[in-house]
Amino acid sequence: MSKQQKRSEETRTRLLNAAEKFFAQDGYDAAGVAKICQYAGVSKGAFYHHFSSKQMIFMALFKQWLEGLDLQLTKLRDDMVDIPEGLISMAAVVQDVIRTAENQLPIYLEFLNRATRDPNILQAMIEPFHRYHAFFAEMIEAGISQGTLRQIDPSVAARMIISMAVGLLIQGLLDPAGSDWEWTTEESIRIILRGMVKR
Amino acid sequence: MSKQQKRSEETRTRLLNAAEKFFAQDGYDAAGVAKICQYAGVSKGAFYHHFSSKQMIFMALFKQWLEGLDLQLTKLRDDMVDIPEGLISMAAVVQDVIRTAENQLPIYLEFLNRATRDPNILQAMIEPFHRYHAFFAEMIEAGISQGTLRQIDPSVAARMIISMAVGLLIQGLLDPAGSDWEWTTEESIRIILRGMVKR
Repeated sequence: MSKQQKRSEETRTRLLNAAEKFFAQDGYDAAGVAKICQYAGVSKGAFYHHFSSKQMIFMALFKQWLEGLDLQLTKLRDDMVDIPEGLISMAAVVQDVIRTAENQLPIYLEFLNRATRDPNILQAMIEPFHRYHAFFAEMIEAGISQGTLRQIDPSVAARMIISMAVGLLIQGLLDPAGSDWEWTTEESIRIILRGMVKR
Repeated sequence: MSKQQKRSEETRTRLLNAAEKFFAQDGYDAAGVAKICQYAGVSKGAFYHHFSSKQMIFMALFKQWLEGLDLQLTKLRDDMVDIPEGLISMAAVVQDVIRTAENQLPIYLEFLNRATRDPNILQAMIEPFHRYHAFFAEMIEAGISQGTLRQIDPSVAARMIISMAVGLLIQGLLDPAGSDWEWTTEESIRIILRGMVKR
């Protein structure tokens, strides 16, 4: 990477961090590009060089957040020997998001919220659900072939796992003191698995 | 109810319906009290007689939505003979929300979204989760006593059921064409129950 490329990368990262801060703190509508630039120590020209609009930096943040999740999930899948054990290990991803998502939750909810009024955001929102659905359906199919899981509908079971993860995240983030969410996540996966494994 | 009380009730209902429409259509920030009053054919004075602020009508809408849910859940519980069968019958509540919530989803998400920045809304948001948690934990305890459910942690299992319902609702509402959500909801509950029943 050239010196210039490196500087450009750093500027982009500073803008993303500043945007994350103000979206979380003030909400999407109130967070201004001027404020984001000022906090990042970056000119408006540089902002629009990297992102064509406030919506684009918002989408970039969401994408960055998902990339982190994808990386964790793919690593766990690649290290996996036994499918049921592997599914339990994925509880750690949900736990990790609950632990570190203080800044991300408001942005995620803002995203969800705007998705109901903006078809582009809706599309960006739905796409990862489809991707995670395929990811888990494939794992469950492998478990059925392996003989560790019984003949369930992989598509339904995948949606159930994603639903549970989404629901746990929302509750865990809104109400951190409401439960021991790490324990709840692990135990929930164990109960679900008990309904899925072959005996 | 006197004629005057009846008229006052009707005004309140008209205001709630108009608020629901504009919150869903324009979002909370953009939805103005003036517009809500105009659509409802009600004076601003009458608005503030019923609701002290835009936030209060927003909270009232949320409360009204929850009351509908509570009614359905309580009815199902009271009619229930066998706990596992009863839990399956509650799939209908999730299906019903997915079917009828076109207008409610944006408001619910707006609510969630604002909860991250407003402690009053956060409190109003968390309270029903606690209530539903107690409701399901009690049902599961009854199932364990009845001998139909095995010795699971009722608190964890209740959180799992709520998580799944929340996750299914969010996916079903954002992505209605992404799956047969009625079937997914029913099958998900069956898989979960298989992990909970005594054999």
